[in-house]
Amino acid sequence: MFDHAGPVLGIDPGVSCCGYGAVERRGSGFAAVAFGVIRTAPGDPLPSRLAALSADLGHLLDEVRPAALAVERVLFQVNTRTAMSVGQASGLALALAGRAGIPVAHYSPNEVKLAVTGWGGAGKADVQTMVATLLSLAAPPHPPDAADALALALCHLWSAPLRRLAGDGREARSGLDAAVAAAIAREDR
Amino acid sequence: MFDHAGPVLGIDPGVSCCGYGAVERRGSGFAAVAFGVIRTAPGDPLPSRLAALSADLGHLLDEVRPAALAVERVLFQVNTRTAMSVGQASGLALALAGRAGIPVAHYSPNEVKLAVTGWGGAGKADVQTMVATLLSLAAPPHPPDAADALALALCHLWSAPLRRLAGDGREARSGLDAAVAAAIAREDR
Repeated sequence: MFDHAGPVLGIDPGVSCCGYGAVERRGSGFAAVAFGVIRTAPGDPLPSRLAALSADLGHLLDEVRPAALAVERVLFQVNTRTAMSVGQASGLALALAGRAGIPVAHYSPNEVKLAVTGWGGAGKADVQTMVATLLSLAAPPHPPDAADALALALCHLWSAPLRRLAGDGREARSGLDAAVAAAIAREDR
Repeated sequence: MFDHAGPVLGIDPGVSCCGYGAVERRGSGFAAVAFGVIRTAPGDPLPSRLAALSADLGHLLDEVRPAALAVERVLFQVNTRTAMSVGQASGLALALAGRAGIPVAHYSPNEVKLAVTGWGGAGKADVQTMVATLLSLAAPPHPPDAADALALALCHLWSAPLRRLAGDGREARSGLDAAVAAAIAREDR
């Protein structure tokens, strides 16, 4: 169950560059607790990079102690290789959250842009500018992956109370969530 | 570096059902050390399932102490959701291997079928039958995911010496490996 008191940790998963951004309520607004990117060494073998990413994500969860994770959802449109790579990074984050009992919500890039800028087709620079304004940051967060992660956290902080009001206390499930769950279910033999 | 003395652990990654099969050289042939599947509870949230899968894979590596992992590679043809799900499962296995310093090789389903049955288009039952014959098992390994994992291990045991003879001691890299590496590299900004 979502806890108003703790920060929400946004995760923009990637093996090469994984954005993170923790946001908490402060007064009538929101404040950034931590943000940045985890990079892995391009020259290292993939297993070493994933091991390093998992360790860094684990340290991040220990440090931030988030009440919830907001993770970017992969769109249908991306190609197989991108989906595979994002899946590898997000799988590590989700497994760590599952082990720690932290609830996880997913949002598509368009949902996040719509929530933060009011327009689902907004560009990276628009998201960076709006995130800086909403969080009273001196400068737009850089790189864009860090801004995207902060935007994911903001999107969750806004939408989670609405979801609770709309339903029975469980997180609402989008059609895409249901489709992904069905794809996993089809694996069962 | 591949070690002739240790077993090779084949992994057929999946969130719902993850096949594993450990094979070692014995005399002039091969023997199965362990095989089976790791299943996660279909009704549980995805983060819990991934946490359980990661824990089980960790126990498996501790038990088998493999000299190498042979992991099934996702084909270009699969859809985004399947790639995402297989990516999540394989990411956990690769991260554990990376942390333990275990080398990892990837093989496509067709490479594995070709190695084990002599025909890249062989069916699941053919693979099960041939794996049983090659490993002197009393019955075909079941479910097919376990047979596929044993076949992956056999494929690696056969091809690793050839790769060493062909090159400079490093594992040969297929065009697909290079393409996936390039896709991750493109993430760099």
